[in-house]
Amino acid sequence: MIELNNSEEKIFNKINALKEKSGSHSPSVFTIKNEIKEIDIKIDACFLSNPYATDLFIDYLKKDLIKSNKLRDVLEFYPSQNSAISNFLSKKLKINSDNLLIGNGAIEIIQALLHNFVNSNIVVCIPTFSSYYEFVLPKTKVLYYQLEKKKKYQLDIKDYLNFVLKNKAKNIVLINPNNPDGGYIKKDNLEFLLKNLTHLENIIIDESFIHFASEDISNSPINYIQFFKLYRNVSLIKSMSKDFGIAGIRCGYGILNSNKVQKLLSNGYLWNSNGLSEYFFRLLINDQFYNKYEKLRKKYINEVNYFEKELSKIKQIKVYPSSANFMLIELLDGSTAENFVSKMLIKYGIYLRNCNDKIGLSGEFIRLASRSRSENKIIIDSIQKIFNYK
Amino acid sequence: MIELNNSEEKIFNKINALKEKSGSHSPSVFTIKNEIKEIDIKIDACFLSNPYATDLFIDYLKKDLIKSNKLRDVLEFYPSQNSAISNFLSKKLKINSDNLLIGNGAIEIIQALLHNFVNSNIVVCIPTFSSYYEFVLPKTKVLYYQLEKKKKYQLDIKDYLNFVLKNKAKNIVLINPNNPDGGYIKKDNLEFLLKNLTHLENIIIDESFIHFASEDISNSPINYIQFFKLYRNVSLIKSMSKDFGIAGIRCGYGILNSNKVQKLLSNGYLWNSNGLSEYFFRLLINDQFYNKYEKLRKKYINEVNYFEKELSKIKQIKVYPSSANFMLIELLDGSTAENFVSKMLIKYGIYLRNCNDKIGLSGEFIRLASRSRSENKIIIDSIQKIFNYK
Repeated sequence: MIELNNSEEKIFNKINALKEKSGSHSPSVFTIKNEIKEIDIKIDACFLSNPYATDLFIDYLKKDLIKSNKLRDVLEFYPSQNSAISNFLSKKLKINSDNLLIGNGAIEIIQALLHNFVNSNIVVCIPTFSSYYEFVLPKTKVLYYQLEKKKKYQLDIKDYLNFVLKNKAKNIVLINPNNPDGGYIKKDNLEFLLKNLTHLENIIIDESFIHFASEDISNSPINYIQFFKLYRNVSLIKSMSKDFGIAGIRCGYGILNSNKVQKLLSNGYLWNSNGLSEYFFRLLINDQFYNKYEKLRKKYINEVNYFEKELSKIKQIKVYPSSANFMLIELLDGSTAENFVSKMLIKYGIYLRNCNDKIGLSGEFIRLASRSRSENKIIIDSIQKIFNYK
Repeated sequence: MIELNNSEEKIFNKINALKEKSGSHSPSVFTIKNEIKEIDIKIDACFLSNPYATDLFIDYLKKDLIKSNKLRDVLEFYPSQNSAISNFLSKKLKINSDNLLIGNGAIEIIQALLHNFVNSNIVVCIPTFSSYYEFVLPKTKVLYYQLEKKKKYQLDIKDYLNFVLKNKAKNIVLINPNNPDGGYIKKDNLEFLLKNLTHLENIIIDESFIHFASEDISNSPINYIQFFKLYRNVSLIKSMSKDFGIAGIRCGYGILNSNKVQKLLSNGYLWNSNGLSEYFFRLLINDQFYNKYEKLRKKYINEVNYFEKELSKIKQIKVYPSSANFMLIELLDGSTAENFVSKMLIKYGIYLRNCNDKIGLSGEFIRLASRSRSENKIIIDSIQKIFNYK
């Protein structure tokens, strides 16, 4: 069983104080670095991104902006307006530009939808990304649908459909794959739901982790634009932070009915992109960049699979099935998630997500993101050491 | 009188098409560069910033992030939460952290205030920055207070006060110095207004250009934090884009009553900073940086004064009195603002703000930002050439 020594206990208390201030989210690596000098974060496995994609982005950035001395222009001047960016990005996404709203991260789109179009109630599966219930309007009732531990937190489509109908839900949100467990709804099952829920006001599908999921052996890309085109109540939300590994730039978008886009743009969201997010979106429509990215996406999926397999070999933990780039694990040896995460951070500089504050989870749960091969090896090795494996 | 030749006319039509899409704002330099290849923008005098401050910021950025290879961390990982940033920035601003809300540019704070706290009506002086009337809720009535041309667009305090009282206004906004004319309300006059308007729900003071104003010979810094502390209905809005020359990073904040900050943070605005905006805010609390900045602020004020004096010598234009870093000018020779701005852009690569779409201005008006000494010389020289001066 993992326990902290005295000096670790002291640092642990500082982490807890920071955590209290961060609500239901982890303090950022920058906040920790600045506030707790004793901690040296080497690997942020709290952050759910593809590090190979970050490498690729940084390569382009260095060439396009730094070596050519154009970074100043990007930081000095106003970026383009929302509609100017959606104008070129919509072509890449094969949708009309009036169906696209650019966000300062996907979180801004989540906030905009919940504040403007979700009124009476909304079904949220738990465990989940907490903003989906925290950002609702005070008048909106959140109907929690509990994903069952005995079903390994996978969504039971028919049971869920009954819940939505029985509760006279008007709005639902589905993160696919889900965060924090990586549970995946297959495309056929998702369409079965959509077909049976055409009477709902809003079906929000958050496809932020969809680049890590696959339904075939060649890991072909999956997206839900066809559902958006078929079902008028579907809104798609997409973060760029995870698949492209650029959370610090804040890029996301929503694919929404044109009346929603129009309403939101009529009194806001005009200049919510920054210079680097505009640069990124222009890069995204560059085929050479995208083809390189696509190779790294597949490489990373293989890496995630390897990481999952290695984690599964550690007998003190249970790994829940995931189609995303992270794993929800449960501690089986009586250790608390708090002690495990603190030890990993203080002793090995590895930052993990303690899921104690996630509603809908019962047990000692931690979420681990897959990083690069070399970092994953260090993570596995450190976990083994913590359990005195060797 | 300025007229366009055939080839200029063609490019002019393309500019107009872009402008139509941008509503009541100018298309960004990036949009123009990408959409109209014939135009080579050399000087963006549409953008109201201190270029010396940009130089300083870029110097720090190169040293702190690029040479030390830390840029990747800033772009890859999630920046700190809103409250973590306001926590350290509030000390610099000498306010409580629960009075500070960090924004993705000041525009996000403007939007948040107008959407959440401004209901019945709001007095907006015109001409003005259009978002103050465009971003209001559909139910909010905008009461336009016309700044008078014969008073050179300077605010007549007593007449304004009467207007506010007579119309039973509940909310007002004052940009000081005002945009697009640079008209300035002296601190004493502003306090006279605040004292007589304690019954209002909201007095929004936008101090985004206050670093360029001065009330004494040594150009001592002015701010309104004392008013915020004295009058419970005062909200302060501050853009960092202008004084620090970093519009592409999107940094701004609001100094607001703690109940407003609390309400906004209760269901949103959690991760609205990007990695570079967090870096900038951390730089802002660095005394060495700030002392250097303060010298450049004063240097730039002198440059603005020089620019104003040189502009005033051109007999075809009238320069309106400004306490900001830009000048509103009126064409007196019968030329249209459209032709003037197009000629300057197409022939000299100088991007200026045609004020034809600004409500509350009657005549042919253009807004020119003061840039560096060398750029200002080119601007003056080009204007003289346009009027066949030499």
